[in-house]
Amino acid sequence: MSLLDKLQWRYATKKFDATKKIPADKLEELLADVRLAPSSLGLQHYRIVVVSNPEVRAKLREAAYGQSQITDASHLIVFAAETNIDETYVQKRIDEVVNTRQTSYESVEGYKQMMLGAVSRLSDEQRLIWAQKQAYIALGILTAAASELGIDNCPMEGFSAEQFDEILGLKEKGLTASVIATIGYRADDDPYSAYAKVRKEESELFIHI
Amino acid sequence: MSLLDKLQWRYATKKFDATKKIPADKLEELLADVRLAPSSLGLQHYRIVVVSNPEVRAKLREAAYGQSQITDASHLIVFAAETNIDETYVQKRIDEVVNTRQTSYESVEGYKQMMLGAVSRLSDEQRLIWAQKQAYIALGILTAAASELGIDNCPMEGFSAEQFDEILGLKEKGLTASVIATIGYRADDDPYSAYAKVRKEESELFIHI
Repeated sequence: MSLLDKLQWRYATKKFDATKKIPADKLEELLADVRLAPSSLGLQHYRIVVVSNPEVRAKLREAAYGQSQITDASHLIVFAAETNIDETYVQKRIDEVVNTRQTSYESVEGYKQMMLGAVSRLSDEQRLIWAQKQAYIALGILTAAASELGIDNCPMEGFSAEQFDEILGLKEKGLTASVIATIGYRADDDPYSAYAKVRKEESELFIHI
Repeated sequence: MSLLDKLQWRYATKKFDATKKIPADKLEELLADVRLAPSSLGLQHYRIVVVSNPEVRAKLREAAYGQSQITDASHLIVFAAETNIDETYVQKRIDEVVNTRQTSYESVEGYKQMMLGAVSRLSDEQRLIWAQKQAYIALGILTAAASELGIDNCPMEGFSAEQFDEILGLKEKGLTASVIATIGYRADDDPYSAYAKVRKEESELFIHI
């Protein structure tokens, strides 16, 4: 099955089978896929919270309009944008590059200055939006990768970021919940799984120049 | 090869082989993948411009700090967010759902009201940011899908949206360039292809709760 077949198979799962859990090795592979998501200047402007704890998920469900996927999916994934992307954050990235590539600080000075320039040009609010956009790339990768692994998935925006931050203790970590996804296995009786997929016609979506 | 292997193989291609073009059937499959990207409330808040024309790309390159990928990649993909997501836009979506699923307008009235509510709660600026975030999901899918097909890819934010809009005539279509990607085949001598991939350590990226 090609990825295209898998993406045809996927849908925004509304009802998960609460008895089915993603096997540990599959979850590990999925997270490894998501870890490789590209990001602007390679800054990976977010952390990814993998929530399995049922009590915590019960609280989060209340902060997400009671949507059942939050508790019934195998796992809940919270993409939490970094709120403190500053010189210290950039320096940490530079350290990682130097360590991973066994190179010199001099050789990555231009890259560092480019990152610092990008960071300093943005207001706090713009920097957060920038970070959140990168999280959405990772969400796209998660969607594709989960589908490839035969894992149902449902990206969701309907939740209170403030309450999620509170419940998950994100604020004190310099993070804020930005978008979430539930992953697991569809319930046999989820009516949504049978609905025809609706997308813009090719001529409405693509412009060829 | 699993998607994970393909994502390990991919990197932000800095130098493309300008002589190599993506075969038509592969490009078609890639765009079909991207068309299936999920979006908030299914609104697909963007259009996707596929630019192959060399003269247009030469102009766009100037509007993107002269980055060579713009002209040398097989194709340039511009994700252009919709700037007019309003009641008319929502109604069009509802028409598509009714047509595709051969259902009644009554049966999707709740969905319509949910979309109208979401749209009306946001300011113009917030609505644009919302649309742009959805485009980043599609960018994530593009990255994964291109890699799966053995197509090199490089997401890019370094360009003047204003100039892109002007060159591509996007403003009059109610669109604005939000993020771009170049796709094609790496040049044999792109030094970046040999660099070790740098990502946050798993313990730095993931929080398990």
